[in-house]
Amino acid sequence: MASVEAPAVTPEEARRHATGPTAGLADGYTQANLIAVPRDWAYDVLLFAQRNPKPCPVLDVTDVGSPRTVLAQHADLRRDLPRYRIWEHGELTAEPTDATGYWRDDLVAFLIGCSFTFESALRQAGVPLRHVQQGRNVPMYVTDRECRPAGRLHGPMVVSMRYVPAHLTDTARDITARMPAVHGAPVHIGSPNALGIKDLDQPEFGDATSPHDGDVPVFWACGVTPQAAVMASKPPFAITHAPGHMFVTDVRDDDYRVF
Amino acid sequence: MASVEAPAVTPEEARRHATGPTAGLADGYTQANLIAVPRDWAYDVLLFAQRNPKPCPVLDVTDVGSPRTVLAQHADLRRDLPRYRIWEHGELTAEPTDATGYWRDDLVAFLIGCSFTFESALRQAGVPLRHVQQGRNVPMYVTDRECRPAGRLHGPMVVSMRYVPAHLTDTARDITARMPAVHGAPVHIGSPNALGIKDLDQPEFGDATSPHDGDVPVFWACGVTPQAAVMASKPPFAITHAPGHMFVTDVRDDDYRVF
Repeated sequence: MASVEAPAVTPEEARRHATGPTAGLADGYTQANLIAVPRDWAYDVLLFAQRNPKPCPVLDVTDVGSPRTVLAQHADLRRDLPRYRIWEHGELTAEPTDATGYWRDDLVAFLIGCSFTFESALRQAGVPLRHVQQGRNVPMYVTDRECRPAGRLHGPMVVSMRYVPAHLTDTARDITARMPAVHGAPVHIGSPNALGIKDLDQPEFGDATSPHDGDVPVFWACGVTPQAAVMASKPPFAITHAPGHMFVTDVRDDDYRVF
Repeated sequence: MASVEAPAVTPEEARRHATGPTAGLADGYTQANLIAVPRDWAYDVLLFAQRNPKPCPVLDVTDVGSPRTVLAQHADLRRDLPRYRIWEHGELTAEPTDATGYWRDDLVAFLIGCSFTFESALRQAGVPLRHVQQGRNVPMYVTDRECRPAGRLHGPMVVSMRYVPAHLTDTARDITARMPAVHGAPVHIGSPNALGIKDLDQPEFGDATSPHDGDVPVFWACGVTPQAAVMASKPPFAITHAPGHMFVTDVRDDDYRVF
């Protein structure tokens, strides 16, 4: 079953050829969110991440202007994600599949942990992944929880949601708690209202998924949170990944397991 | 026994009155390393910490010029540590018990996790703490492992060492692995040579401790690492804690346990 859900592509193949959401791709390898901002804003982003470690666990930060990361030696961050978003003053202005033409010499890129990383571990523990089964992008929601601001950056926390059979929510919590670098334990289990989410069928990012009988919604902090901060805080320029269209690294998921 | 090793002082009492090393003080409360640098160097320090999360897990970063931290609402970072070190161009120039006269309006202070934080958990699991029993500061050593540089900051990793009975090293590893925010699992168990440490009886910081029969040296990454980076990288000005003389926070140790 794992081989059906997770075609055996290498991380490099995923970086070169993927065009859609990357959930289930290059199974066992860590995926990452991207946000690149001008050097002048880099301290704010790094501090925002430090102050909000559940949604923004930083896996790597590039040197100014460099599209290279230690997470994948031969990758080029300008073109090796399936889809990008270009932001000007908080407005989405383009969604290209290659960001080379938008890259600037003063950009600093942040790679932030992604919950797709713990999906292999969930699957191995028998926790079904409804969005993968249903061929959809994971649903993501803007919550009513404000992040702790940092410098000029502020905004709400974004969460991803997975329906989990009620008898497996403890398992899902325990497995993901051991991986704090990729969001760790859920921020909430059970009630969308507790996070200010009005309708699970209308996610702000990704696709709605369908629960099975007895499923409970489980919410994890999400690396799209910096994009919500870009929208709220309006830095002059930013490049991010498109939600669900992640950077596939060469690092094994297990490397981010603390126990 | 716990009451003998750990007098029941509150974190606030510890901040006001402690003058020596803080191991075992305010048992159950998180302790932190301090490094404050001019704003111009703050990005380098924060990036250095991100790139070296084992020695430099950041618990809080202050706003520019502020001596306030979310880790202890009523504390004043200028005076509430037992002892400070003042650094100019990488040279130690003073070691006051109050840093108020040295504080600057452009300073950004970083509070970094401290291995003293997991000592309560070790003690509760039956792992003896030789340095506490012997009334000494924990021994710390400069290793031959270079940290990953960041901007203008570079330097070697510093480790703390605790002698642990051989049959309890797995226990010590498992307990501390669950607390990555306060250095997490050991970086090495067994051989000082593996870290380039020549003589366990001559620590660079703190005091030598004596092993019992069957004890094995266990090494954890240490928050004195930024001080080694200050010595190597020579920023114009910095204020740090004196090794072992930590900032006692109001946060419970358990808050940094991921599982």
